[in-house]
Amino acid sequence: MTARFDFASDNTAGAAPEALDSLIATNTGYAISYGADHVSKQAADLVRGFLDADADVRFVGSGTAANALALAAICRPFEAVLAHRHAHICTDETGAPGLFGHGLGLTHLTGPSGRIDQASLAEALAQPDLSFRQSPAALSLTQATEFGVLYSGEQIAALTAAAKAKGLAVHLDGARLANAVAAGFDPRSLKTLGIDILIIGGTKAGMTPSEAVVLLDPALSRRFDARLKQGGQLPSKSRFYSAPWIGMLESGAFIERARHANAMAKALAAAIPFETVHPVEANGVFVEMDEAVRLRLAKTGWFVFRFLDGSVRLMCSWATTPEAVEEIAAAMRSVL
Amino acid sequence: MTARFDFASDNTAGAAPEALDSLIATNTGYAISYGADHVSKQAADLVRGFLDADADVRFVGSGTAANALALAAICRPFEAVLAHRHAHICTDETGAPGLFGHGLGLTHLTGPSGRIDQASLAEALAQPDLSFRQSPAALSLTQATEFGVLYSGEQIAALTAAAKAKGLAVHLDGARLANAVAAGFDPRSLKTLGIDILIIGGTKAGMTPSEAVVLLDPALSRRFDARLKQGGQLPSKSRFYSAPWIGMLESGAFIERARHANAMAKALAAAIPFETVHPVEANGVFVEMDEAVRLRLAKTGWFVFRFLDGSVRLMCSWATTPEAVEEIAAAMRSVL
Amino acid sequence: MTARFDFASDNTAGAAPEALDSLIATNTGYAISYGADHVSKQAADLVRGFLDADADVRFVGSGTAANALALAAICRPFEAVLAHRHAHICTDETGAPGLFGHGLGLTHLTGPSGRIDQASLAEALAQPDLSFRQSPAALSLTQATEFGVLYSGEQIAALTAAAKAKGLAVHLDGARLANAVAAGFDPRSLKTLGIDILIIGGTKAGMTPSEAVVLLDPALSRRFDARLKQGGQLPSKSRFYSAPWIGMLESGAFIERARHANAMAKALAAAIPFETVHPVEANGVFVEMDEAVRLRLAKTGWFVFRFLDGSVRLMCSWATTPEAVEEIAAAMRSVL
Amino acid sequence: MTARFDFASDNTAGAAPEALDSLIATNTGYAISYGADHVSKQAADLVRGFLDADADVRFVGSGTAANALALAAICRPFEAVLAHRHAHICTDETGAPGLFGHGLGLTHLTGPSGRIDQASLAEALAQPDLSFRQSPAALSLTQATEFGVLYSGEQIAALTAAAKAKGLAVHLDGARLANAVAAGFDPRSLKTLGIDILIIGGTKAGMTPSEAVVLLDPALSRRFDARLKQGGQLPSKSRFYSAPWIGMLESGAFIERARHANAMAKALAAAIPFETVHPVEANGVFVEMDEAVRLRLAKTGWFVFRFLDGSVRLMCSWATTPEAVEEIAAAMRSVL
Repeated sequence: MTARFDFASDNTAGAAPEALDSLIATNTGYAISYGADHVSKQAADLVRGFLDADADVRFVGSGTAANALALAAICRPFEAVLAHRHAHICTDETGAPGLFGHGLGLTHLTGPSGRIDQASLAEALAQPDLSFRQSPAALSLTQATEFGVLYSGEQIAALTAAAKAKGLAVHLDGARLANAVAAGFDPRSLKTLGIDILIIGGTKAGMTPSEAVVLLDPALSRRFDARLKQGGQLPSKSRFYSAPWIGMLESGAFIERARHANAMAKALAAAIPFETVHPVEANGVFVEMDEAVRLRLAKTGWFVFRFLDGSVRLMCSWATTPEAVEEIAAAMRSVL
Repeated sequence: MTARFDFASDNTAGAAPEALDSLIATNTGYAISYGADHVSKQAADLVRGFLDADADVRFVGSGTAANALALAAICRPFEAVLAHRHAHICTDETGAPGLFGHGLGLTHLTGPSGRIDQASLAEALAQPDLSFRQSPAALSLTQATEFGVLYSGEQIAALTAAAKAKGLAVHLDGARLANAVAAGFDPRSLKTLGIDILIIGGTKAGMTPSEAVVLLDPALSRRFDARLKQGGQLPSKSRFYSAPWIGMLESGAFIERARHANAMAKALAAAIPFETVHPVEANGVFVEMDEAVRLRLAKTGWFVFRFLDGSVRLMCSWATTPEAVEEIAAAMRSVL
Repeated sequence: MTARFDFASDNTAGAAPEALDSLIATNTGYAISYGADHVSKQAADLVRGFLDADADVRFVGSGTAANALALAAICRPFEAVLAHRHAHICTDETGAPGLFGHGLGLTHLTGPSGRIDQASLAEALAQPDLSFRQSPAALSLTQATEFGVLYSGEQIAALTAAAKAKGLAVHLDGARLANAVAAGFDPRSLKTLGIDILIIGGTKAGMTPSEAVVLLDPALSRRFDARLKQGGQLPSKSRFYSAPWIGMLESGAFIERARHANAMAKALAAAIPFETVHPVEANGVFVEMDEAVRLRLAKTGWFVFRFLDGSVRLMCSWATTPEAVEEIAAAMRSVL
Repeated sequence: MTARFDFASDNTAGAAPEALDSLIATNTGYAISYGADHVSKQAADLVRGFLDADADVRFVGSGTAANALALAAICRPFEAVLAHRHAHICTDETGAPGLFGHGLGLTHLTGPSGRIDQASLAEALAQPDLSFRQSPAALSLTQATEFGVLYSGEQIAALTAAAKAKGLAVHLDGARLANAVAAGFDPRSLKTLGIDILIIGGTKAGMTPSEAVVLLDPALSRRFDARLKQGGQLPSKSRFYSAPWIGMLESGAFIERARHANAMAKALAAAIPFETVHPVEANGVFVEMDEAVRLRLAKTGWFVFRFLDGSVRLMCSWATTPEAVEEIAAAMRSVL
């Protein structure tokens, strides 16, 4: 019996051919370092085209660091970032925002399926600005959310409008932006929706490790490379971080492969003998499952994990096959 | 005229075939994330074999972050790291040790060609331990140094002995350890020489971006993965950081290609019409050159940069060709 | 109508005569700086006597900084401190532990009246040690709690035993330790109860601004003065921070005046026309009060504030008079 | 033989009567906490009057923290503060700017007697803005300098003009501003000279521990109290930090007692059998003295210390007496 991690996360798959081929193709000749290379310039142009926005774009190795450095750019240590209590920055990044942000606070908001409720945001914004509390300086959104659902453009607009009325900046964690776009979200709306700084996930979308940092607010650009370098995110051989974006964006695979992952998630939800606890709008399926069942499933080789809300999470990716969907569904039925 | 960066740095080259092939080969199937994958395990075994030492080994994306996180592990914010004033951590990492180390101090030592003088270390260690100064908690060495020379084992032993007699831990920045080993330094001596934490450069040695962090002192292992994750250096698709080590170490290319780089540096020093200002022991050549000459050289397409001591630095790498050596030498002669 | 802050907090009063006289008496001649003076030595001896424990003792200006520096000494940035969700470090110190502790996490525990439940601690300690979470390195207790109740020695022993079984260090915020001792808690038990680092509040006990930092675990002493100095808490004219402790401890006023404050709280609770929502064991009274009533009370000049649990908090201090108790009780009756 | 610290520092003396009396006088009734009290308001008005400038003024306990928090307000972690290499922030604050400023860099400038040379500043400002270096965001001046000399208004204006032309903010460490003013410097010129944030020393001027933080640039005011609170410098019983300023400023003692200290320094320089190595313009005397002589002097009871430039420093204060000047001079002659 081999251990199978197909659905354990969307980062257990390797790199998609379009990404890897692009990385291989770039491995020729010499290139200036630290992001000034021609590959990074071309990739940045493609990201700008994807977003239909003029913005500085950088490519880094870690989504955790990208988020944390972004938050440090818009929130001072004695202030707080408002985020969903189940946002990745709050739950799964070992407190990186506090390290890179020098103690900045994370104020937890609520809302179903990882989407921040307008009312929850309003309540946080209504708090008085007291010297002994960390008052909000930024709002952080996640699209698609950790529970695999989408904000509509209207929902984002309402949240950012409320935040900006109080002077907050807005960060968007787009680790799974590709899945959101494949599900209908328009990436060209992000700037007008009020996002100031955006992280686009390459890794989960099928690249070798790479995340794009997009500075939609030009005021954030000053010495941002020094910020990245100090934070260990200005790679010397930068072309290897930007190269996969070229292959994925030029070919359209960035969205097409996310569309596949989303479709696999819908197929999975339909195939398996468990009830979903969140709408399946992107590439994740969340189900109720007894712990005894989950452990029996693991004995068959299939590893899936319990998530923040107690449900069991199954993630699909560019690499998920219909056969694997059938196989895990069968394994599940066998252990019920 | 094309811009040529062949000698601008040893990170302007791409990845060596052994590294890239290994990365491509690993891109199959699913792998558990965050360093627990089988690829990372195999690579760690190979590093342990290379060092002939039992030690925890991790693979990260940034040498700057690796150094800074290592120093944070052995020096508290109100203490200082003793390092050569021209060490990379002091001059070219945007103060990353201070960010990751929360304000830890860097006390500058001296010595020719980037090698710390025993006397300079002794003087620093003799300072009284005063509450209003940052007293030393760690010593940082670089092998090969920033000026392309080597410490002998005896020299390292003398420095670490003096440091350890005062309770200091020892970090070694091995961004160019491969070049040092190719030049005769024994990597299996590092543990007995008293190094507690070691960074081995993969990037400059011809890999896609990757550095190995080696915890020779087992007391440093507790929750080190959490330290890495918070610092943005525990990659999810970790196999892509460890894979190149397998190809490079198994084949011997890690040292063989460094040996080539070193040989090219010697050839370069012999071929060019400038005097070297440091012994050529590894892959760097440092020469006296008028700024007017350097600018005329740039007009021919060849970019080389002035370094910390005012000399002009020319770096060779696994990719350097004898033809390029001849070409830059000819270009240099043409602009004298 | 004058604004009256008698019950708004226990830091709205000035300094008790024993504290101020001691400060005045020390203002003679020259004294060496940074805590090495004779006054600080005498005060430290008195604190050691009070605790019947051999320990390094320092005197600092801020309870917030004292707590934060203490936590930074026992918890690394990628780890967490377990604390009651209503502990002062979690709610009223603007995230100081994150600043001084470089992003360390605060994991919230629960329990009635600010006392951590054994079960809540057990649950936190049972969490797996995952690299993407901040796992606990320390437990923080508050005696008396923010809601004016006491832990028994047995309760503390049970909590510290559970924490230490998992390798955690224990911090005690004793901003109101004097009130706890006046209510029967034995300060000589703290070391044997397993407290490693202790802050004793001088300010709220009736001193000019001063807090004692007590290192019950001698392993914490190394370079602690450098830690304080870097944190802005190693005062140059240190005698002014230690002097009030001499007058208060030598005379017994430290406890006697806390006993008075506690008695005033009991009298207040008996006199006022509101129901208390926490037992009155120390110097605080917490009552249910309609916001409309509180605002009408403020119009009579009496300012009291709503606290973390929604109740209205009334604090007594060394300076509280029976007359004031009568006066606020009358004012309350008048606005009902 | 009693140890005598009269000249060891200007913080070995106690508090001047005007300061202590004011502190005693304020110790009456209740006052709202955290700087909102009537005493702090009155003191802030007096500081504004002293500077003839509209500015937010806060009173804190530590000059080290005040400087560090000020620098953190005007310099980001990946940037640097330009300061004289012998500035207190560089040499005697245990790296506090790095702790509070999260790794911000300190770039050392030079110039005789602690005054930054225009040329040294120009050189630093001419450096290219590279991502792998910490480029300057702020300039820090000290008036009077650590070596007891003054900048003229013209000198400050020239330095701040050069700094501001490059977008830098300017901090002034006025730990001994009173001595500078007593020596002829006009405090009402500070705002027009281009200082953005100013620390005025109360402690060395003869107060119980207190420093004033003055925000001459109003853009720095937003949430500055939260910054102070998180940094442990927003005291609860704030009146005790502001009170001494009232007595010292209202009476004129703030400058008169500094004038006395300065006069004592001149008398001391004239009386002692050593050559001064810096002009005596404020309250410090720096002399050449053999270490053997210094140690013999210590055996007579008189402690003086070797300073950053190798000279021996003797500091006068409000408390220095002509008799003490004669006594130390006699002791010095006896050990030659």
